[in-house]
Amino acid sequence: MIITMSVSAERKDIQNVKSKVEELGYATKLFQGERKTVIHVIGVTEREKLMKAVESMPGVENLVPILRPFKMASREFHPENTVISINGKKIGNKEIVVIAGPCAVESEENYLEIAELVKAAGANFLRGGAFKPRSSPYSFQGLGEKGLEIMAKAREKTGLGIVTEVVSEVDVPLVFKYADVFQIGARNMHNFHLLKTVGRFNKPVMLKRGMSATIEEWLMSAEYILSEGNPNVFLCERGIRTFERYTRNTLDISAVPVIDNLSHLPVIVDPSHASGDSKYVCALAKAAIAAGADGLMVEVHIDPSRALSDGKQSLKPDVFMELMQDLKKVAQAVGRTL
Amino acid sequence: MIITMSVSAERKDIQNVKSKVEELGYATKLFQGERKTVIHVIGVTEREKLMKAVESMPGVENLVPILRPFKMASREFHPENTVISINGKKIGNKEIVVIAGPCAVESEENYLEIAELVKAAGANFLRGGAFKPRSSPYSFQGLGEKGLEIMAKAREKTGLGIVTEVVSEVDVPLVFKYADVFQIGARNMHNFHLLKTVGRFNKPVMLKRGMSATIEEWLMSAEYILSEGNPNVFLCERGIRTFERYTRNTLDISAVPVIDNLSHLPVIVDPSHASGDSKYVCALAKAAIAAGADGLMVEVHIDPSRALSDGKQSLKPDVFMELMQDLKKVAQAVGRTL
Amino acid sequence: MIITMSVSAERKDIQNVKSKVEELGYATKLFQGERKTVIHVIGVTEREKLMKAVESMPGVENLVPILRPFKMASREFHPENTVISINGKKIGNKEIVVIAGPCAVESEENYLEIAELVKAAGANFLRGGAFKPRSSPYSFQGLGEKGLEIMAKAREKTGLGIVTEVVSEVDVPLVFKYADVFQIGARNMHNFHLLKTVGRFNKPVMLKRGMSATIEEWLMSAEYILSEGNPNVFLCERGIRTFERYTRNTLDISAVPVIDNLSHLPVIVDPSHASGDSKYVCALAKAAIAAGADGLMVEVHIDPSRALSDGKQSLKPDVFMELMQDLKKVAQAVGRTL
Amino acid sequence: MIITMSVSAERKDIQNVKSKVEELGYATKLFQGERKTVIHVIGVTEREKLMKAVESMPGVENLVPILRPFKMASREFHPENTVISINGKKIGNKEIVVIAGPCAVESEENYLEIAELVKAAGANFLRGGAFKPRSSPYSFQGLGEKGLEIMAKAREKTGLGIVTEVVSEVDVPLVFKYADVFQIGARNMHNFHLLKTVGRFNKPVMLKRGMSATIEEWLMSAEYILSEGNPNVFLCERGIRTFERYTRNTLDISAVPVIDNLSHLPVIVDPSHASGDSKYVCALAKAAIAAGADGLMVEVHIDPSRALSDGKQSLKPDVFMELMQDLKKVAQAVGRTL
Repeated sequence: MIITMSVSAERKDIQNVKSKVEELGYATKLFQGERKTVIHVIGVTEREKLMKAVESMPGVENLVPILRPFKMASREFHPENTVISINGKKIGNKEIVVIAGPCAVESEENYLEIAELVKAAGANFLRGGAFKPRSSPYSFQGLGEKGLEIMAKAREKTGLGIVTEVVSEVDVPLVFKYADVFQIGARNMHNFHLLKTVGRFNKPVMLKRGMSATIEEWLMSAEYILSEGNPNVFLCERGIRTFERYTRNTLDISAVPVIDNLSHLPVIVDPSHASGDSKYVCALAKAAIAAGADGLMVEVHIDPSRALSDGKQSLKPDVFMELMQDLKKVAQAVGRTL
Repeated sequence: MIITMSVSAERKDIQNVKSKVEELGYATKLFQGERKTVIHVIGVTEREKLMKAVESMPGVENLVPILRPFKMASREFHPENTVISINGKKIGNKEIVVIAGPCAVESEENYLEIAELVKAAGANFLRGGAFKPRSSPYSFQGLGEKGLEIMAKAREKTGLGIVTEVVSEVDVPLVFKYADVFQIGARNMHNFHLLKTVGRFNKPVMLKRGMSATIEEWLMSAEYILSEGNPNVFLCERGIRTFERYTRNTLDISAVPVIDNLSHLPVIVDPSHASGDSKYVCALAKAAIAAGADGLMVEVHIDPSRALSDGKQSLKPDVFMELMQDLKKVAQAVGRTL
Repeated sequence: MIITMSVSAERKDIQNVKSKVEELGYATKLFQGERKTVIHVIGVTEREKLMKAVESMPGVENLVPILRPFKMASREFHPENTVISINGKKIGNKEIVVIAGPCAVESEENYLEIAELVKAAGANFLRGGAFKPRSSPYSFQGLGEKGLEIMAKAREKTGLGIVTEVVSEVDVPLVFKYADVFQIGARNMHNFHLLKTVGRFNKPVMLKRGMSATIEEWLMSAEYILSEGNPNVFLCERGIRTFERYTRNTLDISAVPVIDNLSHLPVIVDPSHASGDSKYVCALAKAAIAAGADGLMVEVHIDPSRALSDGKQSLKPDVFMELMQDLKKVAQAVGRTL
Repeated sequence: MIITMSVSAERKDIQNVKSKVEELGYATKLFQGERKTVIHVIGVTEREKLMKAVESMPGVENLVPILRPFKMASREFHPENTVISINGKKIGNKEIVVIAGPCAVESEENYLEIAELVKAAGANFLRGGAFKPRSSPYSFQGLGEKGLEIMAKAREKTGLGIVTEVVSEVDVPLVFKYADVFQIGARNMHNFHLLKTVGRFNKPVMLKRGMSATIEEWLMSAEYILSEGNPNVFLCERGIRTFERYTRNTLDISAVPVIDNLSHLPVIVDPSHASGDSKYVCALAKAAIAAGADGLMVEVHIDPSRALSDGKQSLKPDVFMELMQDLKKVAQAVGRTL
């Protein structure tokens, strides 16, 4: 940690900060620049505590951490890629995984039909929401346990693993019974109780990025899960909020190589929620694979115009089928398989 | 609801959309513009359902809602201001309320001392966190029930009501026992289960704006609470996330008059979290009152450099005392009291 | 254009708006919804004038345009792709173009060397700045005409066309003499005098997206150039400003398919300025091609650590050489050539 | 400047960076932390050059400047407030200045009438655009020199100084002849040629903040003007671009105290462009004064519904008159006069 003192800091201000830091058990070194003094703190173990202790002291202008705040999620401390095995498939490997299905589970018949179709197209996992976090209290909120049961049936029929969102810590044990992967949605990336709860269960977690979360905060949320003992976390970029209005969110494609540089955790991309428009999903899916993503999560619906949620962003089965063929070529072009 | 068809929409596309809308029970009128056809839907009661039904049909370019999505929170349906009575004080009235105290409750001695000080300065409510949502799992997470007990003691001594955050639906009944106002923090503005839970309790709720929430989404979150039967909701603007880096967030001061125009719910401002820097808190507090806010939430700490959380943004007691005097003058200048 | 009247609009407010619109020569139709009245205006030719005329009239709540504001740039009015021929190469075609070179022209020797290298790697155009718009007055501002002369020499030696930025309308005739493509930089996307000036010259223009410009504004800036008579405009996405800090900007990869949907103009991507970090350039370049971009602009420098500007984001020649090989494979995977 | 080396940096990487820095003439000190090495560079005079030289060297992770990039605009080097005298009025003093008038000059009769009215209400300067930067080429672009002549007549009649925008370096001498203050608009904050040109004239400059400019970049643009020899610069906050849609921009009210802390230059606020809606202008104007702004720029129009540009955000004369009375009270409440 580096502490920059302001131009107007007095000798006693500097001395006070130095003493406070040493009181906390750290060694310091002082630099007298031409206009400002800088205090170097060595071997910080409790970064937050140190920051709180000095940031409002007289004369302190700025604090600059040298080490990153995430540890277990960091490649600095864990150089090899994490590879997660789920239901016989691996995420984080050379092979790219595709999670597909409708936004919400709406009926058994419908869901089983779409499950067979996405399997035939080559998808590796089924998605589907039984609990939907909706911004309006007047919108369809999901079928609940009934939805989970339908997904379990679809797994039985197709052999594909199930990825489904859990929106409340209370529901974690219930979802655990049915799902192969816990999905933590964008709106819950900062729901730390929920993160800790899934961190205590022995089941992989797909952590979506919050709507306006920095990559650093996202990795800190992964850290919450990891630090509770669950090492099987993968990340899902789904677009961030900007001023642009032709797409629902702005897909931060750079997050893929940035995560790959900072962390050993796998990262996938959700082009459906990122764009909010099926017209743009295929282009973004191909871009994600080309950028190095370990997988995709794509919404597919038999009849998007009858979907109870997010119909506009769902692909029709034939479009998805064609996309899968195109993705195979892109995967091959970047040395991966699908 | 207005449905715009694209330039290339064919006659049968238009007919299909018209039929689908009428199937849902709404009357339609068609406009043939010079290049595009527009379909007007009358008397929409289930907006989301209608949108999902048509947005992905062939030829549909765009949907424009005519009514706002929030109803119970809207001034269109409830023209008079909501005034909330809490512990003998009113929010939403001519009188401005000030909620003050440290970010987190750290120790009994400390908290009681600061409680007496902010009361002496003229504050109306005490703030303090017993459950802290922290972005790092390695940060101080709050004292839990012990913290609530300390706040209750402070209320006993000072007579000031208690505003404290609840971060998990599981804790709602516990916090209900101690608090006068449930605080829903920015990170939980989209935690719909938590919103519904506090909506079922008979206790005022202060709803902070999510870090990147639009005003419309914020009012939709209020709608979640209102629609469960709890009418006593007030809003707290605490800054939104932008690219600017000299402040932690960007205080959206315009939210004050915008909310006043759109909704009957009271709105207050938190200049401490918005700026993240005590140097800027007083200027922003005065601006908030001048803009028409119904109150303020300000962090005050006896010794900010010893605070376990957010010390940098806390005011010292003497600065707060002076601020309260300044605020009285600004309140008077805009026809309010404090 | 659709005019929504507020719930509280009175009969005479509606009548006044109707009369004002008709005075401007447009036919109107009224809809009486259940709570609000909507006025439909037919065949709007002067949109801005109409908006100004009615937007502040009593009772007016909102105006919704039905047609897009850009005309000459719109695919609605010009369905086929624009293909631009420059120095024997075509942009907007099946073949992908690559513009490469250093950020700034620094010395003749250096520039000629890098020009030969990027040609050998397969680039189609040379980039290089003679006039640099720098946010600090204390930074290197470019060699001016001397830089243009060096670029002309490099063209002579390599046969590659020259893309270079013009930052002032005064310099347009000078840059015209040397360049094959005028580059309008992000900071000048809203410099309308400059746009009009290059619109009057018979030379292709590469228009970069402004740092916080919406896609609609970007296309309106293209419209400025097109409406002066120059049809040879192509767009360059270079990242937008968001809250994320691990990359200098956020590459809006979705802009590629969105532009392709809205406009007939070619669009290329600049992964170097978007990320600001050579570690991420190759992943983003591949993503751009996979998303359907018509080309790339990539910074390459012989010795990035000696560059006078933007060294951190420049690729070394051997990395660029390898990237070109990788890009060929991705191009082929999406049915393009390079 | 502090250079952080990555965890994986080797001894020779560190040595190379050290040598490169010393080659540039600076002394260095090394810190060996527990995981990372930090190189401290002393007395940096050419910051950009140093950054370019080392940022892409092997093993370099991050560079942290210790001094701010702006010098002449910084309070660190110029502690007292700058006070600018214009046409007998002072900006940056205890007295708050108000600049008022229509967005564009539309006709002589109209302009003279509004000039008399805003003078009667107590405004100190007249605003009005003769050259309008419009995002659509099909919008009204201003009257040009004819508009400047009308403004000069209004000054003659009212005695109020004239603030008007210059959008092209070519027009600077022309605008110089008529105006009392050069306005640099948001879209030109990064037009460095224009900044340098007005920096060479002996006339005050009002520099608006770019739509997505950070405060640091804004001060760097002021630095461009100051470094050319013109010390009379004041800043105008006019809202930044965010995701919020109920206001045209988001007024960054915090910019007022932040600028006051970082710089000696006066800062005013433009609530009209910030909100884009006359409903919100008065609340924001009062907030600006309460936050410590040195002045306001407010749009006033005799008949906003007939304005050729930005009618929706213009106040009617009677509303402006009332606002001026309210502002006097707020000014007094914060120890200023108006």
